[in-house]
Amino acid sequence: MTAPPSHHTTPHAPPPSPGSFPNARVKPHRRKGRRLPGATAARADLYELRGQGRARSPEKVCVSGARGAHAAPGSARRLIDDSKEEATAIETELLRDYRFGQQQLVEIWGQACALAITKAYPLGSLARKQPTVLVICGPEQNGSIGLVCARHLRIYEYEPTIYHPKRSSHSLHQDFTVQCEKMDIPFLSYLPTEVQLINDAYNLVIDAMLGPEADCTGVKEPYSGILATLKQVKIPIASVDVPSGWDIEEPSQDGINPEVLISLTAPKKCAASFSGKHFLAGRYLPYDIQKKYELNLPDYAGTDCLIEL
Amino acid sequence: MTAPPSHHTTPHAPPPSPGSFPNARVKPHRRKGRRLPGATAARADLYELRGQGRARSPEKVCVSGARGAHAAPGSARRLIDDSKEEATAIETELLRDYRFGQQQLVEIWGQACALAITKAYPLGSLARKQPTVLVICGPEQNGSIGLVCARHLRIYEYEPTIYHPKRSSHSLHQDFTVQCEKMDIPFLSYLPTEVQLINDAYNLVIDAMLGPEADCTGVKEPYSGILATLKQVKIPIASVDVPSGWDIEEPSQDGINPEVLISLTAPKKCAASFSGKHFLAGRYLPYDIQKKYELNLPDYAGTDCLIEL
Repeated sequence: MTAPPSHHTTPHAPPPSPGSFPNARVKPHRRKGRRLPGATAARADLYELRGQGRARSPEKVCVSGARGAHAAPGSARRLIDDSKEEATAIETELLRDYRFGQQQLVEIWGQACALAITKAYPLGSLARKQPTVLVICGPEQNGSIGLVCARHLRIYEYEPTIYHPKRSSHSLHQDFTVQCEKMDIPFLSYLPTEVQLINDAYNLVIDAMLGPEADCTGVKEPYSGILATLKQVKIPIASVDVPSGWDIEEPSQDGINPEVLISLTAPKKCAASFSGKHFLAGRYLPYDIQKKYELNLPDYAGTDCLIEL
Repeated sequence: MTAPPSHHTTPHAPPPSPGSFPNARVKPHRRKGRRLPGATAARADLYELRGQGRARSPEKVCVSGARGAHAAPGSARRLIDDSKEEATAIETELLRDYRFGQQQLVEIWGQACALAITKAYPLGSLARKQPTVLVICGPEQNGSIGLVCARHLRIYEYEPTIYHPKRSSHSLHQDFTVQCEKMDIPFLSYLPTEVQLINDAYNLVIDAMLGPEADCTGVKEPYSGILATLKQVKIPIASVDVPSGWDIEEPSQDGINPEVLISLTAPKKCAASFSGKHFLAGRYLPYDIQKKYELNLPDYAGTDCLIEL
């Protein structure tokens, strides 16, 4: 019988026992100082650590008293963790250490946003005969996510229209724009100040404008004008990650009032008292990142890439 | 009342009538010589054209007599279209004209493959207590898709192990590899020639090895040896796009015998008489591409990104 193979990075290390073959060996540098007879044991180790991580995080704010507890699938418990610095740190780590690509992450997030919209506003439930949706996209990453969301909504038989007032010079953003244009998704050249036109034309507005990276204290044109319009619209608004104009750290008292919030990676602090429908799309996150930042993410059901909190 | 906005690329064109505001105007260069009062009409046009495209393609091979017909969701009709040249042409067009990124496409395909595995082999149905899966990855794009598939399977609570005998120097491929390593997915350093070890250790093998770009006439080591092993394994094999060692144009008589085939974009000709479970993952495809290549793709249900043919 052939000896079981060892991990590719350790061809000269003594092979693990045959019983541990199925999972081979994990990289030795991953868990220094630990016994590593095989990945099964290492994985048990990991689960144990994750469990400890969850139990050791009473300082994290978990609404409805579920401090550090493990939320069940579909649980109504809210898990509020992410500050601006933490959100940036997680993304930097994903891009630098985990070698995720920005294009890859934006695709994952944008698709998750589109799926959240199909859950919150199923095609059959829309007030208007045409399943029209207005997607307002900003110039940074949040806007790219909006573009991907619009493309997926088009695939799901919605009729998105994009308002994208300032084009980015970032080639990735331009690529996502071309993908939408080539899918025959219409782009508006300006947003009417007459709010009734918007109310009449669309079933809802997706706010993918400013996002967590924006400075909410000095919102400039055209975004300040768009926010003024959005405060008056009567159709529902669904915001991506952080409602435009809100501070990431706290809910806005006089800002826009979204009916749906789609948190990416982990909910931001401003979502703590959000009373609308709140989705979390962060299932792609590696366990070690979840553990390191003690994100207390809930369990996703089946193969769902998002969960309603 | 504010005049309805026109499309951003035609700020000086006469605005469409207010009734057409919801969808604004599509880009004028998209449908030359057509009347374009608004996107709704243009879209109806598009649907009409797509319908014609489907009706006009009797030369396309559709097994079970459904020549050029529109397959219903979940229909058992097979739609076999793609030759090697056509597959390459579609991908080139997606990357060059539609500005999709390779990273983006591989992420979409890899996730779809993982979802196909969850449908064909649900966690609860596996023969072994541990939900182990061996993913064999080649050096090209098919291998990258296998890496993404393994990462998503890990997220869906399977226990993938990767065998990836020849690393690619392509940075994208390396990034997908690091993502798996950092998710603690074990990598084998070699595949045992003793087949019983594989049968005992895993529930199934995912073949993401050679793919449509490979030349099946001169398969070299290590892949020829792996194929010899795979021909002997007793556990099911699920192949990505084209079973390794098969000619893309015709089924193999003496090659590996996968139980599941996951066609990407459109089924290749070699899948014409495939008798196992056959999935198609091509929902992301823009309508114009489907029309141009007369792909006769079936309708996907709900928000599913794949369909069983």
